[in-house]
Amino acid sequence: MAEPRISSIDGKLAEEFAVPSHVEEVKEKMSAFAMDHVAAGRRVVLITSGGTKVPLESRTVRFLDNFSSGRRGAASAEYFIDSGYAVIFLHRHRSLYPYTRTFSTINMLDALQLRSGEAASEVVVNQQVLPNIAQVLTRYQEVKDSRLLLPIEFNTLSEYLHLLKAAAQALSTIGSKAMFYLAAAVSDFYIPASEMPEHKIQSSNGPLQLSLNMVPKILSPLVKDWAPQAFVISFKLETDATILLEKARRALDTYRHQVVVANVLDSRRGYVVVVTAETQAELLLTEEDVKNEVEIEERIVSNLTTAHNKFITQQVGGQ
Amino acid sequence: MAEPRISSIDGKLAEEFAVPSHVEEVKEKMSAFAMDHVAAGRRVVLITSGGTKVPLESRTVRFLDNFSSGRRGAASAEYFIDSGYAVIFLHRHRSLYPYTRTFSTINMLDALQLRSGEAASEVVVNQQVLPNIAQVLTRYQEVKDSRLLLPIEFNTLSEYLHLLKAAAQALSTIGSKAMFYLAAAVSDFYIPASEMPEHKIQSSNGPLQLSLNMVPKILSPLVKDWAPQAFVISFKLETDATILLEKARRALDTYRHQVVVANVLDSRRGYVVVVTAETQAELLLTEEDVKNEVEIEERIVSNLTTAHNKFITQQVGGQ
Repeated sequence: MAEPRISSIDGKLAEEFAVPSHVEEVKEKMSAFAMDHVAAGRRVVLITSGGTKVPLESRTVRFLDNFSSGRRGAASAEYFIDSGYAVIFLHRHRSLYPYTRTFSTINMLDALQLRSGEAASEVVVNQQVLPNIAQVLTRYQEVKDSRLLLPIEFNTLSEYLHLLKAAAQALSTIGSKAMFYLAAAVSDFYIPASEMPEHKIQSSNGPLQLSLNMVPKILSPLVKDWAPQAFVISFKLETDATILLEKARRALDTYRHQVVVANVLDSRRGYVVVVTAETQAELLLTEEDVKNEVEIEERIVSNLTTAHNKFITQQVGGQ
Repeated sequence: MAEPRISSIDGKLAEEFAVPSHVEEVKEKMSAFAMDHVAAGRRVVLITSGGTKVPLESRTVRFLDNFSSGRRGAASAEYFIDSGYAVIFLHRHRSLYPYTRTFSTINMLDALQLRSGEAASEVVVNQQVLPNIAQVLTRYQEVKDSRLLLPIEFNTLSEYLHLLKAAAQALSTIGSKAMFYLAAAVSDFYIPASEMPEHKIQSSNGPLQLSLNMVPKILSPLVKDWAPQAFVISFKLETDATILLEKARRALDTYRHQVVVANVLDSRRGYVVVVTAETQAELLLTEEDVKNEVEIEERIVSNLTTAHNKFITQQVGGQ
């Protein structure tokens, strides 16, 4: 039998990025998750979230990382679930997590109280410290019981790339009912395994010269080969607002996916631009919104689920 | 009046590493903490913990980091407090924290249960998920009430360096009663502010060449100028066991401090060597120890508090 065509990015992925040992197992899990939920009439969104770790040594002491708390991905997961989606949450280990994100800045021991009852002592949450905990817990348990959230963790760039590929292949079976919401802050640069020193780089050798290769643009095979019917959203974060929209448009031209959500580092929590080939929508939180604790992710998700609707109905023979 | 002599490292610190705005405030807090506890008959240990973040851009999207969960520092803080020390815990934001570290791998919402009482609904901890929570909480509250733990956070290398200098100066007033337990994984390399691009590095410019300078060895002024009477422990982590002890000895020769705790990445949780100018003690957990959940930090702290005792009594006129 003839081997399937291996694209150059596929080849690079296999050669230069270590394959996580559990990738096939995770792929099957994601595939079963997607098919179950589509059978139940739901759509499925794969959310990527958090930064990627790029090791500088194979026995890693040092690494490159990207700024990302995972806040946008975690918040968006909640709004997608509220909108009827099932969510695969591909996130960086220890980045913010749906529901728990709401008390991530609090030391849990400051919110607990010991109560000596008749039998053993009980530990209860002080609801003056965590006023929304009962509500958050209730929602968390509902989501858990209905299995609407499948969490998958990554740590390194290699794990991210292989798991995203596995997810794309797993979701290809549900066609246009799959959405990819690629909010993770993925490194653009890496050191290939073949050029990586085994041991910790010694500072006694003097100043450090690092030479980093460019990470293959995985969006390209994702859109073309792995999940060609899916609705795909990428994110563009810049610090310089003047180049942002041009870069968003260029990404759409290059990868031919559906949406770029463009944002600037300093204003990312209150302002984004949702860019498609034909449209450009500014989403903005007003002072009133901020006072009411509205989150920009609610607006983003609302915009995208509407667009996904249209996308599905427009697809001739969309599954 | 003549200006005090500025060592070259002091000059470099001021020029190339941004000074955190709250450094003077923190210094006064640390100084008051140390004096209060010494007046109450205690010794004071400054523990540094976690990795440092080294920005590659001034509006930071990308950064270099060091592998460190902060486990060793957080565990050691507990054992120092158990040994009668007051602890200044200078730690990386979001690294492991004393007491809470014991349930850091658990999603707290999986450990909580809603109970509808007569009045408002209560949220209680499921002690089958967190069997030690009552004990941990009790100890945490005792430590908090007796103000034995002063937590100070850093994120970047710059913050770490300036806060450590402030701590050393704050603790110099208590002489040999101060211990420095420098367990943080500090970067050896950085990009000076003057050579740092403002905006996010563009991947469209092609492969990335990074040129990193060597971080000034802050242990040198700490031992010589800032806290010359203190008992100082540094840590040496290598991935290559064959160079470890030689590097530990060289550090003691160079900086003239009291102890290096030497460890290898793969075995660091069960084996360390405590190296001084005259001695070399291997601390090792047996299988029996591991079964009984003994932590290597208990042994390290026990070894060092004994050595600190001797150090204080040997100092002529030690305060």
